[in-house]
Amino acid sequence: MKIRIIKVGGKLIEDEQLLHRISQQLELESRDTILVHGGGTMAEQLATRLGIPTQMHDGRRITDQETLKVVVMAYAGWANKKIVSVLQSKGINACGLSGCDMGLITAHKREVREIDWGFVGDVDEVNTKELLELLQRGVVPVVSPITFASDGQLLNTNADSVAGAVANALSHFAEVECVFCFDKPGVLLDMEDENSLISVLSERDFQNYATQGLIHSGMLPKLTNAFQMLESGVSSVRLTSPLDLWGGTVIQKEK
Amino acid sequence: MKIRIIKVGGKLIEDEQLLHRISQQLELESRDTILVHGGGTMAEQLATRLGIPTQMHDGRRITDQETLKVVVMAYAGWANKKIVSVLQSKGINACGLSGCDMGLITAHKREVREIDWGFVGDVDEVNTKELLELLQRGVVPVVSPITFASDGQLLNTNADSVAGAVANALSHFAEVECVFCFDKPGVLLDMEDENSLISVLSERDFQNYATQGLIHSGMLPKLTNAFQMLESGVSSVRLTSPLDLWGGTVIQKEK
Repeated sequence: MKIRIIKVGGKLIEDEQLLHRISQQLELESRDTILVHGGGTMAEQLATRLGIPTQMHDGRRITDQETLKVVVMAYAGWANKKIVSVLQSKGINACGLSGCDMGLITAHKREVREIDWGFVGDVDEVNTKELLELLQRGVVPVVSPITFASDGQLLNTNADSVAGAVANALSHFAEVECVFCFDKPGVLLDMEDENSLISVLSERDFQNYATQGLIHSGMLPKLTNAFQMLESGVSSVRLTSPLDLWGGTVIQKEK
Repeated sequence: MKIRIIKVGGKLIEDEQLLHRISQQLELESRDTILVHGGGTMAEQLATRLGIPTQMHDGRRITDQETLKVVVMAYAGWANKKIVSVLQSKGINACGLSGCDMGLITAHKREVREIDWGFVGDVDEVNTKELLELLQRGVVPVVSPITFASDGQLLNTNADSVAGAVANALSHFAEVECVFCFDKPGVLLDMEDENSLISVLSERDFQNYATQGLIHSGMLPKLTNAFQMLESGVSSVRLTSPLDLWGGTVIQKEK
């Protein structure tokens, strides 16, 4: 069994065409696939319209009570159901789920240290039993990054972290590939040249490229995270464009 | 097998205590139970804050594109996840679902006649296979009244109609009781006297009481609907307060 966890950004909710392009790719092959999505700029737009101030720290959202309501509505509500309904219309048996549903993803409220993140959750456990059962029945889980604590508190979690946690947890039961979609066709040696795509990247090559300054800035944490996932048992990590889910750059352990 | 469909209003999202009272009752007995919820005044409050005008006709909401987004966010998002997370915290394996999830409830956009209802859906089909499968696995489906058309369009459906459609569909496979919660302890012979509760109401008694004017106004359509459900195969319909899910008035066929 090979499971694919595909993390897509929230942009595809705002860009209907992109959502249809992803559906077309999944139409051809959606077995044992889990989609994890963000909410893009939706939550921010909604918060702005409601006059709720956005508080960010290090590019992450501080989530007070009002903001929590906004992200639950935007991610678990509109974004999740929009994706599911389009997939269903293509004959893909998608099921929208958040962390609380069937107790899929439990988390704890992040401790207050220098920063009080509010209702931000860090994942504790993934209910692999229910996820595997759904996959076995041919369902494509579409997971929003809303998690919950055992006391019933809903929590806002980073979608990349959710995808990572799900991938790591399932890697104990199956070969797992985690696909992170972003706005590039993959890892490029020259950011300006899409033909400089690296199709397979080993850790040794990564270190070399990083030392030479060819891979830098935003790509460094993405790739460091990818290699950490390989260490924790995920078979491969793919960085690609949502237009080419099975293309882009594959990161895997050296054989 | 006896399945209970419990329709709760949206008030319990706004009234946390009420939500906990319902959870306590379900804690004792939640086998083969499906919860269907409305969104109460949440959607209206959100629409007002967003400056989206509310258009009603005969007490039903006309749903334009912006209003659809609001109801999906309020019902499928906040209300649904709030209920599920509280149930989960009580050890009830709830799973929040909307019509699109696993293609549970397909509907069609209501035809434009005198009124253009916008994105309002009338139920066509309930996916009983998936619902029965979930029940069999001990899951308590928590269903929001957001349905979808086969072309992927999300639709706003009346929660009572969703509960009724689910009950009717499942009545082909099991004994089904449909519990409608409202703000009275049940059917009262004297609206001012809670001791005048009728615990079992036959159609003959209903006709008599209605002729005498003892049962009137809002109770008439509720009860007419209940007797229609019995005709379609539902075993019993209960009208009760959310504080007493297994009490109130039972409407069943004459033996």
